[in-house]
Order: sequence, then C-alpha cells, then structure tokens
Amino acid sequence: MDIRPRDNASSWQQKAYRVIFESDTRAGQLFDIALLIAIVLSVVAVMLESVTSISARYGSILRAVEWVFTGLFLFEYLMRLLVVRRPLNYALSWLGIIDFLAIVPTLAALVLAGSRYLLVIRTLRLLRVFRIFKLGQFIGEGEFIISALRASRFKILVFLSSVVTLAVVVGTLMYVVEGGQNGFTSIPKSIYWAIVTMTTVGYGDISPVTVLGQTLASVLMILGYAIIAVPTGIVSAQMALPAGGRPSYKRVVCHVCQATDHRDDADFCWHCGEKL
Amino acid sequence: MDIRPRDNASSWQQKAYRVIFESDTRAGQLFDIALLIAIVLSVVAVMLESVTSISARYGSILRAVEWVFTGLFLFEYLMRLLVVRRPLNYALSWLGIIDFLAIVPTLAALVLAGSRYLLVIRTLRLLRVFRIFKLGQFIGEGEFIISALRASRFKILVFLSSVVTLAVVVGTLMYVVEGGQNGFTSIPKSIYWAIVTMTTVGYGDISPVTVLGQTLASVLMILGYAIIAVPTGIVSAQMALPAGGRPSYKRVVCHVCQATDHRDDADFCWHCGEKL
Amino acid sequence: MDIRPRDNASSWQQKAYRVIFESDTRAGQLFDIALLIAIVLSVVAVMLESVTSISARYGSILRAVEWVFTGLFLFEYLMRLLVVRRPLNYALSWLGIIDFLAIVPTLAALVLAGSRYLLVIRTLRLLRVFRIFKLGQFIGEGEFIISALRASRFKILVFLSSVVTLAVVVGTLMYVVEGGQNGFTSIPKSIYWAIVTMTTVGYGDISPVTVLGQTLASVLMILGYAIIAVPTGIVSAQMALPAGGRPSYKRVVCHVCQATDHRDDADFCWHCGEKL
Amino acid sequence: MDIRPRDNASSWQQKAYRVIFESDTRAGQLFDIALLIAIVLSVVAVMLESVTSISARYGSILRAVEWVFTGLFLFEYLMRLLVVRRPLNYALSWLGIIDFLAIVPTLAALVLAGSRYLLVIRTLRLLRVFRIFKLGQFIGEGEFIISALRASRFKILVFLSSVVTLAVVVGTLMYVVEGGQNGFTSIPKSIYWAIVTMTTVGYGDISPVTVLGQTLASVLMILGYAIIAVPTGIVSAQMALPAGGRPSYKRVVCHVCQATDHRDDADFCWHCGEKL
Repeated sequence: MDIRPRDNASSWQQKAYRVIFESDTRAGQLFDIALLIAIVLSVVAVMLESVTSISARYGSILRAVEWVFTGLFLFEYLMRLLVVRRPLNYALSWLGIIDFLAIVPTLAALVLAGSRYLLVIRTLRLLRVFRIFKLGQFIGEGEFIISALRASRFKILVFLSSVVTLAVVVGTLMYVVEGGQNGFTSIPKSIYWAIVTMTTVGYGDISPVTVLGQTLASVLMILGYAIIAVPTGIVSAQMALPAGGRPSYKRVVCHVCQATDHRDDADFCWHCGEKL
Repeated sequence: MDIRPRDNASSWQQKAYRVIFESDTRAGQLFDIALLIAIVLSVVAVMLESVTSISARYGSILRAVEWVFTGLFLFEYLMRLLVVRRPLNYALSWLGIIDFLAIVPTLAALVLAGSRYLLVIRTLRLLRVFRIFKLGQFIGEGEFIISALRASRFKILVFLSSVVTLAVVVGTLMYVVEGGQNGFTSIPKSIYWAIVTMTTVGYGDISPVTVLGQTLASVLMILGYAIIAVPTGIVSAQMALPAGGRPSYKRVVCHVCQATDHRDDADFCWHCGEKL
Repeated sequence: MDIRPRDNASSWQQKAYRVIFESDTRAGQLFDIALLIAIVLSVVAVMLESVTSISARYGSILRAVEWVFTGLFLFEYLMRLLVVRRPLNYALSWLGIIDFLAIVPTLAALVLAGSRYLLVIRTLRLLRVFRIFKLGQFIGEGEFIISALRASRFKILVFLSSVVTLAVVVGTLMYVVEGGQNGFTSIPKSIYWAIVTMTTVGYGDISPVTVLGQTLASVLMILGYAIIAVPTGIVSAQMALPAGGRPSYKRVVCHVCQATDHRDDADFCWHCGEKL
Repeated sequence: MDIRPRDNASSWQQKAYRVIFESDTRAGQLFDIALLIAIVLSVVAVMLESVTSISARYGSILRAVEWVFTGLFLFEYLMRLLVVRRPLNYALSWLGIIDFLAIVPTLAALVLAGSRYLLVIRTLRLLRVFRIFKLGQFIGEGEFIISALRASRFKILVFLSSVVTLAVVVGTLMYVVEGGQNGFTSIPKSIYWAIVTMTTVGYGDISPVTVLGQTLASVLMILGYAIIAVPTGIVSAQMALPAGGRPSYKRVVCHVCQATDHRDDADFCWHCGEKL
C-alpha cells in the first residue's frame, strides 16, 4: 500500500498527513490516542445499546452519541482521502475498508431498517489499538511476539492441522458410538464437541453418556491436555532464541591474546584487534 | 513396507508409480493435492449426510457423490495394487488397509443395510493430509515436531502414567466421598470425572456437591493446572535444544582416575591427563 | 513509604519496631508467623459464618472469635502507628489502609447493620502471606518469579490487549450470529462468553446453538488453545535466561566500518580491527 | 527406611529378598511386572464391582477374584516381612502401610459390613506402578522429571500460594457481589468457584449472573489463563538446564593446542592432555 503524502501536497496537507498517518510527532501521537479513545467510546456505545434495559432508558442519548462518532469518523475518513498520496490505494487497503465500513451502517440505517446491526463492524476499528504499540516502549515487544509467531508459523500450521484432523476423526467416531439421542446428532456437531473437548473448553452442552463414549472422551482429553505442550514448546523455543537467531561463535582463538567467543563472521579479535 | 515400483514394470507402470506414490515430480504433487481434495470432499459429503435436515433434502445428491468418490477411490486403490512392487505388502500396510476400508462400506451397503455407517472410516484417509507436509516448506517443520516428541516420548509416557494413576486414585476417593446420588454412580464414572477435571475440560455433567468433595476437587484442579507445566516443560526443553541435541559426553571412564563426563571428542582425560 | 523507627524512639519502641516491621530477628519472625496464623484464622471464621448451617449453630462462637481478632488487629494497628517513624505515611500506604479496613467493619456493625459484610476486606490481609516469603528459602524464589514477570510485563500487556480485542470482535460477531434467544442477549454478555471460551474455561451457561455460531466458536477455541503458547513462551524464555539477562551487546558502532553487535567488553571492532 | 536383607538371612531368604525388593535380576523384574499386573487386575475388579449393572450379574465372580487377590497380597505381605532386615521398619513405612491396608478391608468385611468400601485404598497400590520406571529405559526419564520438579519446588510453592490467595480474595468478593440466590451460597463455595474458574476447569455448576460478577469473572479468567505461564515457565527453564545445572566452562585455553571449552574443574586439556 502506497501511503505517502501527495507530491503536490500543499503545506496543510503535509502537516495533516504527518498528524493523521504518522506517529513520530507529538501531534501525531495525540491524534492516535484521541482516535483510539473515540473508537473505544463508539464501540462502548454500540455495546450498551445492545443491552435491552439500557437501550430502553438511554436509547436516544446513545443514538445521538452514535451520530456524533459517525460524523467524526466520516470527517477523519475524508481527511485521510484528501491528504494521502494515492487515495484509491488507501480506500482499498484493509484499514481503509474497515474505516469505510465503520461509517456506512449509521447512514444506511436511514434507508434500510435493521442495517444498523452492521455497526458491529465498527469493533474491527479496535484493531487500530495495535497502532498504539508503535509508540515508545511497546515497539520492540510487539515486534518480538509477532516475529516469534511468524518464525514458527509453519510449525503452528502443522500442529493446527493435526488438531483439526484428530478432531474430525474422533468426532466422527463419537457420532457412531454415542448417536443422536445423547446430543451427538450429526457428524459436524460431534466434531464441534471434539474441538470443545480437545481444547479443554468443555461447555458440557454435549457430553458423552455411554461407557465407550466416556472412555474415548477421556483419551481425547488427555491427548488434548498433553498436546498443548507442542505449540507452547514451539513458541518458547523460538522466543528463547536471541534476536539474531541462535548465536554462532567462531571456534577460533586469537593467537595473540587467546581470547575466544568471536563472532562467526569476525575477522579481527574483539579484544586485541589482531587479525584472526 | 516395500513400496517400490515393480521390477518388470512396463513404462506406464513406472510413470504411474511415480505419480501415485511419490511426490517429487510435478505430476506427483498434483496427484497428491487432487487426492487430498477428493478425500476432503468425500468426508464432507459423509458429514453432511449425517445432518438430518440436509440429508432429507439433498440425500439423493449426496448418495450420488458418495458413489462417484467410491468409484474414484476404488480405481485409485486398484492402480496402487497394479504399480507397486509387492501388492500384498501395500494391501496389508496401515495406509493400504485404510484405503481398502474407505471403499468397502458403500459397496457393502448394497448387501447389508446399516453398514454404510462404516463410511466414517473414510475420515481416516484424512491422515493422508500429512503427506502434503512432505511438500516444500513443511518437510523440516513436521519432522522437527515429530522428532521432538519422539525424543521426549518416554518422559511423556511417565507423565501420562502419573496423570492416569492420580485420576484413578482421586476418582475412587470421590466415589466414596460423593456417592451415587451426586452423579458419581460408579468408580469408572468417577475416574472419568477425575480426568475431565484434571485436564481442565470440566463439562459439568458431573460435579461435586459435598463440601469434602469440592475441597478434594479443588486440590485436583490446582494439581491439574500446575501439572500441565510438566509436558510443556519437557517439549519446550527438547525443542530449545540445538539441532545436534543435548551436548553428548563420552560414556568412557578414565582408566586411571575413573573420571567421567568427557567431551565427545576428547582424547585425553580432563582430570589426570591420561590418554582415554 | 517511609517505614523506619522514630528518631526519638524510646528503647521499647525500637524493640517493638524490629519485632513488628522487620523479620530479621527471631522475635520478628515469630511475630510474622503468629500474625499470619491470626489472619488465616480470622478469615476462616468469616468464611464459616457465611455458611448458613454453621452460622445457625455456632454463630455466637464465631462472632466472639471475630471480636477477639478485631481486638488483636486493633492493638496491632495502634502499635504500628506508635512505633513507626511517620505514622501518617504508614496509615496511608496500601498495607496500612488494608490493616485499617480489616478492623473497621466489626466496629461499624454496632452502628450500621449489614456493614459486617465488609469483613471480606479482611481477606486482603492474606496478602501479608507474601511477607513470609521474605523468610529464608523463599527470598530468591519469589523475587525470581516477580522479576521474570516484571521483565516481560510489556509483552504480557501486548498479549492481553490482543486477547481482549479479539474477545470484543468475536463476541460482537456472535451477538449478531446467535442472537438473544440463544443466550447471547447483549454484546457485553457475548464478550463475556468469548472470554469464557478463549480462556478455555467453558462454563456452558451460554453456548452456541446455530451451525455458524458453533463453527465460529470452534475457531475461537482453537485460537485460544494455541494462543496460550504466547505468554507461556514469553515467561519461559525470560526464566531460561541466565541471571545476568540476555547477552548484552555494545550499542557502539565502529567508526570505520560501521559494524555493530560488538561484545559488551570488546575493545576492538570484530570486523575491521579498529579501536572502538 | 532400612530395607536390606536380614543379616542372618538363610539362602532362600536372600534369594527371595532379591526377587521381591530388588529389580536388578531377571526374576526380580518378572516379580515386579507380575505384581503390577495383579494390582491392576485387582483394582479393575474393585472398579467393576462398583458398577451396579455388572455387580448384579457377575458379583459372585468378582468377589471370588477379590478373595484370590487378597490371598496373594497377604502372602506377598508376609513374605516381605519375612525376608526384610527390619520388618517393623518396612511395616511402618508408607509402602508397608499401603500394602497392609490393601489386604485388611476384604478380611474386615467378614466382621463389619460396609467396610469393604475401604478396598479403594487398594488403588493406592497403583503407586507401585512407578517402581516399573526403575526398569531400563525409564530410569533417567522419571528421575529427570522428579529432579526438575524438586529443583523448582519452592518456586511452585510460591506460585500455588499466590493462586490460592487470589482465589480466596476473589471468591469472597464474588460472594458479596453475586450472593446466595445465584449459587454463591457461602464464601467457601465461592472460593471453590474461583478455583474452578482460575484453573480454567469451568464446570458451570455455579456461574456469575450479574454484570459486575461476570466482569469480575472475566478478569479472573484472563488472569488464570495468563498465570499458567508461570509454572510452565519455571519447569521449562529448569528442564532446559543440562543435567549438572548450567554448564560452566573454564575460560582457559590450552597453551599447547589452543583447545577451549574445558570443564570448570578440568586440570588437563581434553585434547592434548597438557596440564592447564
């Protein structure tokens, strides 16, 4: 996504760009935080309106709040389009689409009843919360977690495939063993049960009744309980690695000062500066 | 299992062998992926048929789909028998038996009503999903996980034995403490409850009612909660090891000073300097 | 908080200070343990009184016990005020406020009926249990855990934010998918459900009924199951570090070849051999 | 416990001692395995008898089996007393008491009806299962886990104290917030709920109903979910350590062959045998 200020940007556009899209200036940081607060408040308003008792008493206030935030977000959206280098690129990017969809429902509700429920899309704007992690202290931490997850993404994928395959096999088996009268009314539902069990969630809305079913369930539980060690091990091992991967030191010893532990690619001794 | 092409294989047999059994050619990879899609689709069809509402409306279509896939799998099975070096070896191998059992139920249903339920065995063919991990990126990752699990298999076995023993002891205790009127109707059922609790699944289909039972359950929960650290620690520690594994020391003992723990590549005793 | 003995402390005040506030003398340790036992007993008394059947039979005894402990704690509180250097500082510190609030309810109950329920604040005094970890063996262990958690606090914060954001987004989605008639009566309640599910608690008081809802729930469960690897990995990696922390590299850049990542104690560039 | 053969042991006593108490001979290993199978079978018999439907049909057979095993265990117990050096020491040791209690109930049932329920103590004999880990492959593995747990026992104790304290504080709070009509009928029951929640078991027999209660529960769940990282981290870090603790190598370099990585306590070079 090409998010840069316009080439022919007037002075106010460049300033606005730095405030809205970047967070390396004081104003930019304040904008980010203010936006975040606005998003959280608008989401809270949507939430509260979904509670029948609150909506009955404060419905009109909440709807007013909704209109205010929709206005603010509309203004912000138009500003973004005005100051960015390629407005279409922004509009079609993930964040751009979410920004747009967060405005539409309130307006659409004027025409089409019921469409206000789409306001839930506004919660996706909460993902902007992670922008704040670009500020200060959190830069390195967020990147650390993401890079560890990225480095182990294939291992985690293999793991998740195994979990899902096992859930399908055991779920199907349980459908045959327990049958519809014990809640295992169909194979998809039995697979749902298997996932509920393996992940140790265990709602109890469906649970095995027959002896064979309970035995099979016990095996699945113990498996699920032990299997959690795999992703945990993967991520732990990944995170325990130093930043640049496991360090490899040269086995060479400086012939002058006898110093060891030189970097793998070192050409000179770190201690006496002699050529290795 | 001796899965190699026949010695007296004609040209088409050798080609077919490479496509069906191996995945190092483009055609072989395409075959693997196509087979995988076919398996997933056939499993989905079996699943959907188990849903009463869907089966009522699309039953005939789903049954047709079932016959098509059974035909395809039968063809694939015969091809495998034709091109492999020792057909009997393949037929009696795990994968061979599963491949066979995935075809039988549809045919058997013609003669014997109800045997179509055996189609669930077809889900076992999903295990072939792991063949795809032999492709590209996933080779190392899958092997990494498996080798870490294999290296810690005895530790995990010891751990699982402890979990099961504890479940038996606590389950029996709970049977005496709570008794049949609170759902703990027999010792096996109480052990089932203990496993549900220790693994933190917690369906709630059976739960302690008496004060003593709830106290005992609390202890078991905290134990189960803390105990998960053991397999996790085992696998994490294993995975954190560098590729070459735990530093290996020579099993040799110095014949002079009886010192042990010599480096793997040591030629002299670190303690007395004697030649090993 | 300035917790030191008074400057113009008389001899008994200094002695009492050492006993009450410090734990490096035999008497001080005994006081800590006695206080701990008194706290635990008083909390147990409050607990037992909340059980209807026990309260009906032993109510008067328990109320007497409550008065005895309140008297003891009042005496202890006044002693603390008398011997500490700046009584106001102590009184306004966290521990001081808790100590005060642990006494008040019993007295307040004389005037105001129902205020005795505030006795639950007394359980907060249990936090003094961690003082005992200052004794002997536990010093290092407690500090080890706390320092590991402190070192990873930003990572854990980032992780928790992700969990909460995900819970909000999925919870809102489920509210739309399942709707009020299946228990998802409002967005906050749906978020509560999402947290119950992601953390693998799974009460089952609310559980998805529709196919789409169960599918979404399955994805959330598997995510929650895999995501636990993140905090575990963070803390494991932190704890696996040697006491001195992650190997520290000099932040200095070679002024000749611009190489970085020099050892902390390096005097010469590993790349060009120039003096750093 | 002084478990050695008698000083004045006759030849058969010494032989029997080696078979019964030790497992370094072929006969001793066979005895251990046979005993284990007998224990498992006797436990299975007790279990099956607790199932009403099985007990109704095969009650007499199961009772016969019980008598046979009681006879065997009695014989084994007497043999142990006969061949061990200090019979009283054995009889008063943990294993000795369990061995004794495993026999008593069947005999006591002749006199006292209902005492047969004490047979559950027999399951404790299952703990002998861990003896088998003394055989072959498992020696190191079991010791590895136990030594890792022992090394982190104080850390785990600190952790468990924190969990219990938190459960008490939150449980008491929930008692006040939710009150008896929502299932939180007493403080101990609320603490039980807090443990069920924190450990992510989540039966759902008691679950919060009020908004404040659900909010508080959500916080507790997320805490419990994140807190599991602590014991996991402790054990992982411990297990990642090499056998003798973190290895410390001498910083010294052999002045003859320039070899490095000498053991901390090495006096001679492992490579050329020169005095360091």
